[in-house]
Amino acid sequence: MSTDLYDVVHRRRDVRGQFTGAPIPAEVLDRVLGAAHAAPSVGLSQPWDFVLVRDPGLRGAFHDHVRQERDTFAATLDGAAAGTFARIKIDGVLESTLSVVVTYDAGRGGPAVLGRHAIADAGLYSVCLAIQNLWLAATAEGLGVGWVSFYREPFVRDLLGIPDGIRPVAWLCLGPVTHLEAVPDLERHGWRSRIPLVEALHHDRW
Amino acid sequence: MSTDLYDVVHRRRDVRGQFTGAPIPAEVLDRVLGAAHAAPSVGLSQPWDFVLVRDPGLRGAFHDHVRQERDTFAATLDGAAAGTFARIKIDGVLESTLSVVVTYDAGRGGPAVLGRHAIADAGLYSVCLAIQNLWLAATAEGLGVGWVSFYREPFVRDLLGIPDGIRPVAWLCLGPVTHLEAVPDLERHGWRSRIPLVEALHHDRW
Repeated sequence: MSTDLYDVVHRRRDVRGQFTGAPIPAEVLDRVLGAAHAAPSVGLSQPWDFVLVRDPGLRGAFHDHVRQERDTFAATLDGAAAGTFARIKIDGVLESTLSVVVTYDAGRGGPAVLGRHAIADAGLYSVCLAIQNLWLAATAEGLGVGWVSFYREPFVRDLLGIPDGIRPVAWLCLGPVTHLEAVPDLERHGWRSRIPLVEALHHDRW
Repeated sequence: MSTDLYDVVHRRRDVRGQFTGAPIPAEVLDRVLGAAHAAPSVGLSQPWDFVLVRDPGLRGAFHDHVRQERDTFAATLDGAAAGTFARIKIDGVLESTLSVVVTYDAGRGGPAVLGRHAIADAGLYSVCLAIQNLWLAATAEGLGVGWVSFYREPFVRDLLGIPDGIRPVAWLCLGPVTHLEAVPDLERHGWRSRIPLVEALHHDRW
């Protein structure tokens, strides 16, 4: 398995259906979380926390909530899109080895966070940079990551006892996989195709 | 120069003072932007755009704005923090080879973006994942990246003609550097120290 950055970046996938549930060696998990924790952060605030959720009861309760939110989204779709969506698996919460819930603490490093006075969301951005480091490190280790976003933040806060003022940003399923698909699930299932880079490029002005 | 993922993750720095201004070969820039564009995104929406800003007039105008915002932030600090902050360089806009402004288009892939109905910010998160891919790829190529966040979003929108509804998320300085520091600038200058990973870990519940 290559750990070359570009190989990892292009091999990485958002995994739903390929988790095996096999254990993750402790030193591998340490490296993956260490990569997340090495991310850049506004004002060196490191405003992230990681809740490692292994408890089957907690994961089961979350999975039930995700199913309800799936139904909520499905009800907004017209016929063709609804048919496509019905074929798409949206989470691997029960099959993956564990979940990593990543949160944002806006109070950390405060009150004057260097670089955040003009852009309140800059701390939230930092948390996402940590998530991408985690995702790439997991890929380099032969693990899969699936970001589940069919949930309401207050539900996750209540479920895990996350304090007021701390915001859940991501629920990530993590663990060994049988393989990574070459093409993203949503493209394979005809939900949406990737656009070429050139369509997203501008020079000097928009 | 190693392109091993972990080496890149831990070598990466937020660069302010080490830019040389040397040109970036076109194929290198293509690889770096290609890595950004390979990031995961909610509903495969790929809601990012990249504005490559080389024009000295535009960069000069942005730099002047950053200096004003620096003064605004400095005025909020008490004596000791103000003294520390006075020694910290906060941008390399003029010295770096070019700037990459990364934006978020909430309308892309809509109206029903799979995975965003419950979490409006999920699209914004995707843009940040692309930024971290860009940052790591640049590091692997021997380039530096400096994320400047001392600006007001409306100023950048007006300066670059970014349409209504498109949000500027990051102003990144990019280019060859003399070296990357082993310790983050803010830690070297005594602004703030990194916390150990163990302080950010929780098991099952917070």
